[in-house]
Amino acid sequence: MIIVMRHGASQKDIDKVVEFVKLKGRTPHLSQGESHFVIGAVGASQVDPRDFELLDGVREVIKISSSYKLVSRLFKNEDTVVEVNGEKFGGGYAGMIAGPCTIESREQIFECAKAMAEAGVKIIRGGAFKPRTSPYAFQGLGEEGLKLIREAADTYNLAVTSEVMEINQIPLFIKYVDILQVGARNMQNFNLLKELSKINKPVVLKRGLSATINEWLMAAEYILSGGNRDVILCERGIRTFEVATRNTLDLCAIPVVKKLSHLPVIVDPSHGTGLRDKVLPMSLASIAAGADGLMIEVHNKPECALCDGAQSLYPNQFVELYEKLKKLAPVVDKTIG
Amino acid sequence: MIIVMRHGASQKDIDKVVEFVKLKGRTPHLSQGESHFVIGAVGASQVDPRDFELLDGVREVIKISSSYKLVSRLFKNEDTVVEVNGEKFGGGYAGMIAGPCTIESREQIFECAKAMAEAGVKIIRGGAFKPRTSPYAFQGLGEEGLKLIREAADTYNLAVTSEVMEINQIPLFIKYVDILQVGARNMQNFNLLKELSKINKPVVLKRGLSATINEWLMAAEYILSGGNRDVILCERGIRTFEVATRNTLDLCAIPVVKKLSHLPVIVDPSHGTGLRDKVLPMSLASIAAGADGLMIEVHNKPECALCDGAQSLYPNQFVELYEKLKKLAPVVDKTIG
Amino acid sequence: MIIVMRHGASQKDIDKVVEFVKLKGRTPHLSQGESHFVIGAVGASQVDPRDFELLDGVREVIKISSSYKLVSRLFKNEDTVVEVNGEKFGGGYAGMIAGPCTIESREQIFECAKAMAEAGVKIIRGGAFKPRTSPYAFQGLGEEGLKLIREAADTYNLAVTSEVMEINQIPLFIKYVDILQVGARNMQNFNLLKELSKINKPVVLKRGLSATINEWLMAAEYILSGGNRDVILCERGIRTFEVATRNTLDLCAIPVVKKLSHLPVIVDPSHGTGLRDKVLPMSLASIAAGADGLMIEVHNKPECALCDGAQSLYPNQFVELYEKLKKLAPVVDKTIG
Amino acid sequence: MIIVMRHGASQKDIDKVVEFVKLKGRTPHLSQGESHFVIGAVGASQVDPRDFELLDGVREVIKISSSYKLVSRLFKNEDTVVEVNGEKFGGGYAGMIAGPCTIESREQIFECAKAMAEAGVKIIRGGAFKPRTSPYAFQGLGEEGLKLIREAADTYNLAVTSEVMEINQIPLFIKYVDILQVGARNMQNFNLLKELSKINKPVVLKRGLSATINEWLMAAEYILSGGNRDVILCERGIRTFEVATRNTLDLCAIPVVKKLSHLPVIVDPSHGTGLRDKVLPMSLASIAAGADGLMIEVHNKPECALCDGAQSLYPNQFVELYEKLKKLAPVVDKTIG
Repeated sequence: MIIVMRHGASQKDIDKVVEFVKLKGRTPHLSQGESHFVIGAVGASQVDPRDFELLDGVREVIKISSSYKLVSRLFKNEDTVVEVNGEKFGGGYAGMIAGPCTIESREQIFECAKAMAEAGVKIIRGGAFKPRTSPYAFQGLGEEGLKLIREAADTYNLAVTSEVMEINQIPLFIKYVDILQVGARNMQNFNLLKELSKINKPVVLKRGLSATINEWLMAAEYILSGGNRDVILCERGIRTFEVATRNTLDLCAIPVVKKLSHLPVIVDPSHGTGLRDKVLPMSLASIAAGADGLMIEVHNKPECALCDGAQSLYPNQFVELYEKLKKLAPVVDKTIG
Repeated sequence: MIIVMRHGASQKDIDKVVEFVKLKGRTPHLSQGESHFVIGAVGASQVDPRDFELLDGVREVIKISSSYKLVSRLFKNEDTVVEVNGEKFGGGYAGMIAGPCTIESREQIFECAKAMAEAGVKIIRGGAFKPRTSPYAFQGLGEEGLKLIREAADTYNLAVTSEVMEINQIPLFIKYVDILQVGARNMQNFNLLKELSKINKPVVLKRGLSATINEWLMAAEYILSGGNRDVILCERGIRTFEVATRNTLDLCAIPVVKKLSHLPVIVDPSHGTGLRDKVLPMSLASIAAGADGLMIEVHNKPECALCDGAQSLYPNQFVELYEKLKKLAPVVDKTIG
Repeated sequence: MIIVMRHGASQKDIDKVVEFVKLKGRTPHLSQGESHFVIGAVGASQVDPRDFELLDGVREVIKISSSYKLVSRLFKNEDTVVEVNGEKFGGGYAGMIAGPCTIESREQIFECAKAMAEAGVKIIRGGAFKPRTSPYAFQGLGEEGLKLIREAADTYNLAVTSEVMEINQIPLFIKYVDILQVGARNMQNFNLLKELSKINKPVVLKRGLSATINEWLMAAEYILSGGNRDVILCERGIRTFEVATRNTLDLCAIPVVKKLSHLPVIVDPSHGTGLRDKVLPMSLASIAAGADGLMIEVHNKPECALCDGAQSLYPNQFVELYEKLKKLAPVVDKTIG
Repeated sequence: MIIVMRHGASQKDIDKVVEFVKLKGRTPHLSQGESHFVIGAVGASQVDPRDFELLDGVREVIKISSSYKLVSRLFKNEDTVVEVNGEKFGGGYAGMIAGPCTIESREQIFECAKAMAEAGVKIIRGGAFKPRTSPYAFQGLGEEGLKLIREAADTYNLAVTSEVMEINQIPLFIKYVDILQVGARNMQNFNLLKELSKINKPVVLKRGLSATINEWLMAAEYILSGGNRDVILCERGIRTFEVATRNTLDLCAIPVVKKLSHLPVIVDPSHGTGLRDKVLPMSLASIAAGADGLMIEVHNKPECALCDGAQSLYPNQFVELYEKLKKLAPVVDKTIG
């Protein structure tokens, strides 16, 4: 940490800062810059820069060490590649996850699974426990839903991903699901992250609605720090002042994350835009920007979907998109799947 | 729901929308405005406006019914007053909650409790389980912390509030704590909210970092809908582009919420600003704006605090603030406590 | 405009709203919905929905008519194509504008122009008047700069675009420049827009840092309403809470705008990201998302640039990007230039 | 500026950074921290931190010097007090400016002026040139409006403030107006600011919709740097994701600005909230937070106002507010006016 004193700070102010640095278990390094006196606070003890900002004569305090380690490219330079059911994410591969927002019925999930398999998809998505803004909205089929999607997936040789909302649900998910997904609202549910750090299955970690990239990587660090290294980051739009779209898809997060971290980063353009007709252009843009995969909502009958039908593609739209993606990928040196 | 057709929409477009309204279980009401054809979709079935926005010829879709009921002033016009240990929130009373960010040790929490009691505070706060951005930061004393704060509170005739992070922790909190607090990161942890709706103790529901007022009230609806009517809303700053303060305290949320809902709304200026010297002016501003109370961080030795010391007041600063608040309150027809 | 009354609004409340609708020069249309009484306010007089929101018994007020007309696809369905020096924007063409942030010297702008011409670019950019946050930063060469870029452009058969900041500068720009650019800070400088509506040259209208898409289109309406139909919209990043990049490039604005308006929309990934190594991925993403062109900062010696060197490409990086764009474009049915 | 090298940066990387520091006209100061190698870049030449961020081995670059000087409390410690017509802003005084959004007619502005004078107000506001989002909305009476407000003000011994939108309008404003106001949309219209730096009248500088506090102070620096020291800063709400209010009033900006700068800072709760019934609580909150004054919209017949009637108080509401403010001010050691 570096403490910059104000122009004209008194010797007494400086002495007091030096004392405080020591009190906090760090070693002070003094140096006189051209216009400002600067005090380095060297050491590994936890400090809060704001504690120093409040001292007299202090102009600015700068923290150097970011707190994530295991997710950093400095810790591991080569890309992490997560592979599930033959589908790869990272290291030049852009994997595909597709399926309905919610598991609604046996018929629906089997039809969706069939359509996905025919399109060449290897991982199906579908929600069993739904986080809904309103307590009066459909909350999902629960364990029954997980059973249905597992059965449908097995029938068509698909892997399954679904959102886990609660520590108590983890055993159920381990039983039925291949990839556990953490939703945007739970990105900083640290207790949940700690439990997911102990399991043996990959985790898709969605970015919180108002999470900075740094906070997102810190949340991933929770999972890696417990021993689970198979984390796939998923950008799904952030909250801004713009109301024309449900969220603002932050595609520049892709190259930013890929520079800072070795983890694969995919995009969910369905939640990121909230409207079916924006999913195709934003899927193409994601891969062009370097994304390691996509998670896309597809429904056999979107107009009858119980949840988020407006952002779900029809199966034939998905097939068309998938074809375009395969043409686009080589231009940016990617392989789909 | 009201569907506004584009200028020049064809009869075929209109017919299709009408069919779709029926398919969704609602009754269509047609009317020709001066420039636009308008279709009302009357009924109580769940619909997603975006499903209609995607139909040909549709210009705009407007949803009328907000989904919260029990929290609304239309449901209950008179202010809800929550009273704990003789301290009142709502109905003209502005209650006070104060204490350290985190329970650190027996000595620290007893000193804080003593200082709070001497200042006239009746409810002490203190965290036992801390949600920390970094997995490597201090995570709180856990149950041991709850025991200590209970003991200290009993010694000085104080009630206790502390943040619950997890469904599994609820029994522990019921044992030791008088008011359960839901943190900003958990505002949309709907499973947790559902469990809290079944308990017999008041809940402080902090506003999420990027939650709209509507979403906040919907989260409160989860708690009320299960039978727990003692909810205190707490504004604690939202995330914006401004970096000069940790968060942007949205004080206008106070009159907005008080118009929409009967629930008391308090302010946490410590988290809302992140800096000790901003706590006094923003506390005064909160009460002037009509807040039903405050939650303020006070620490016996802020410069040694393990967490958020920079935003904690010294006990004597708190006493000074408390005096000023008592002078200010009558001007806005409030009674402190 | 549609006024939705509260559940349980009194007849007196309704009567008062009806009177007010008439006072404002509109005709009231009453209808009883299932749960709410609804009043339409038909007519063309200017009304402010908030005036009605404040009346007793009113629950919600909904404005239907957006105020832009000439920029709308409802007014003109086919794409507007702007062509300058043989370079096309819109209608399936993605045009390219490239060059340095600022005109710094004869030598610099000639070297840049030469490099651009060799790369196949037909329109060069370069600032003569610079809007700088600090009054102490380099403010541009002024008219001398415009003369230099014109001379360099003529030498290499390029067209010129540069930012106009002030009504007084318009005659100068008409003399030296082929496309006038309105910067993000001036997007709502309505007097400037009105004057630009009267000129005979195309205008690039950058999106304001915190402008909604609707406000951006309204600003374009100012230019079209005076008779100038050659407007190119330019997305260049919006301000959000994220600090990892200078701005958040909102690429979903591209399909949103293209649905609402016939005007071409291009992207400036240099300002949109603020960092050279993000320009390539975001340029590719822009075209993949359907952009009608790009405006990219290229400098012969970015490390010596007086302004924004960090976001400028080296000429050879630009050549590499340009090649990739030409491969990408056919995948999304676009032609570069 | 301080450049922090990555853990494990090579000697070659360090050498290259050192060379680059020299190239940019600064002197490098090397020091080995516990975990990171740190290079100071001492000197006064303009540098862009991003240029250094792009070099190999660089982890982070920190700029120390903020660029405002004259507005800083370090430059001038005592509060600047601006006095107009006996009304004071700053130095313990909270001044009042009130009046209609827009000058609409002789009758209207005279009635407003009379009401303001009777209430004890000494400075009336009123817009003659209106920046409107839509080109089809009422754009103000222009010079005729300025004449009318001057005449009305003289009749009732009031001073006048009005918004100047354009350099060309300055002579007109100097003739008719006592305080020139710069609107939020023009906060970074640097050419306008430069011209206003040369005049002899006070300037109210509104904060831009998405301007950080630092950018706001930099804009004020433009005015002070040309010789005009009478600047009043005005907080009027920032743009965030919240839609319940027109803008989010950032009241914590008051104590933040007052710590950084000697300039008076006032609040415009009318634009800041956009709704009449929020003006009273937010006015009280502003003064409680330490504001040096208020600018409030009052209209003799708000329901007939041509612009922003919904956020204008009735004269009797203003009188009630003014009384409350006078009771509140002593609690926070302020004098109204």
